[in-house]
Amino acid sequence: MATSDVKLLGLWASPFTTRVQMALKLKSIEFEFIQENLQNKSELLLKTNPVHKKVPVFIHGDKPISESLIIIQYIDDTWINGPSILSSDPYDRAIARFWATYIDDKWFPLLKELGSAQGVDAKSSIMEKIFEGLVLLEEAFVKCSNGKVFFSGDNVGYLDIALGCYLGWVKATEIMTGVKWLDETKTPGLVGWAERLCSDSVVKDVLPEAQKLVELYTMSAA
Amino acid sequence: MATSDVKLLGLWASPFTTRVQMALKLKSIEFEFIQENLQNKSELLLKTNPVHKKVPVFIHGDKPISESLIIIQYIDDTWINGPSILSSDPYDRAIARFWATYIDDKWFPLLKELGSAQGVDAKSSIMEKIFEGLVLLEEAFVKCSNGKVFFSGDNVGYLDIALGCYLGWVKATEIMTGVKWLDETKTPGLVGWAERLCSDSVVKDVLPEAQKLVELYTMSAA
Repeated sequence: MATSDVKLLGLWASPFTTRVQMALKLKSIEFEFIQENLQNKSELLLKTNPVHKKVPVFIHGDKPISESLIIIQYIDDTWINGPSILSSDPYDRAIARFWATYIDDKWFPLLKELGSAQGVDAKSSIMEKIFEGLVLLEEAFVKCSNGKVFFSGDNVGYLDIALGCYLGWVKATEIMTGVKWLDETKTPGLVGWAERLCSDSVVKDVLPEAQKLVELYTMSAA
Repeated sequence: MATSDVKLLGLWASPFTTRVQMALKLKSIEFEFIQENLQNKSELLLKTNPVHKKVPVFIHGDKPISESLIIIQYIDDTWINGPSILSSDPYDRAIARFWATYIDDKWFPLLKELGSAQGVDAKSSIMEKIFEGLVLLEEAFVKCSNGKVFFSGDNVGYLDIALGCYLGWVKATEIMTGVKWLDETKTPGLVGWAERLCSDSVVKDVLPEAQKLVELYTMSAA
């Protein structure tokens, strides 16, 4: 299949786009990246994701798919010769899906809320919840990794991608707030995991630089 | 494996519990149903779903799994000899997952919002969105069913279960509001689909009766 048969409509700063880029890198799939402009959405975006009109949209041949976690499962199901993203064990798959859903529905929204929260009390209440979430994710890391280096074991997999895609924004909010989210006392497993992940070939050229995200955030908030 | 090795912690009126019951019925899996009391949650619930403390929780041997869509994927992955819930085609799987996510995240929350909305304008705005969602789901039905009787083709599958679990509440809100959500003009495909689904052996003994849901709602709102 020619390179142009695989397209990704995305935004460089979107963690959901990063997620798909990680999966494509893991599977060594060449693709055409089409940068979207959310102020002036392309016809292709509106046509391929008419329900949500959001990135990322993955287009394989003439088949569009949206929702980042659904896309990476499609990639895993389709390019079966590359390294596996989800475990072949049904229970491990279920647990990885559970935490990925927790991260998207409960934990990451708190980081966004923090940006718009007004007042010291509101901010510190949200920060407390972010830390509580990280403690849960630390416990999940200890259980899932089972003494290995990634959530998925020896190699980057589904949950590494699901959480790892946010590391650029995690670091960006550290720069902006002065708060260190991951530390050796409360979340030692995640500290080591994040370091290893960021230097892994699947991630290091794909994850947006924190400083650039800070600039984008500052510009858009101005 | 003995019957007691498969347990479901649930609530009879919860569509998410119904969803798991449908999947278990489809696969002819015997299980022990443990009715929860949300006013006094059991130790077993708190222990097996410590993050959300919500039903349903599916327990297979000593392995607990929560989140209804994740549970039915686990059931499909584990009891592979029964009828398939998800298609074996990666793209069909992705499309089914997309619409199931849309139903849970966007559409069904509108039915809940309607119950708490105050004033005629607020209610009619939500009702309009519910109808718009149903038109999208009608289009999805036409595409996915491809001339067959269910979203999944000739037999009940993932998306039939994902949407079908709400039919009890759909009918209950029809009784309470006097509004008919599904009609032959705008959503003829879904009208036929709902009738067939409700008389299918996978669904008919499992779906809560609308009148009982109305009584429950009226009691809890009193």
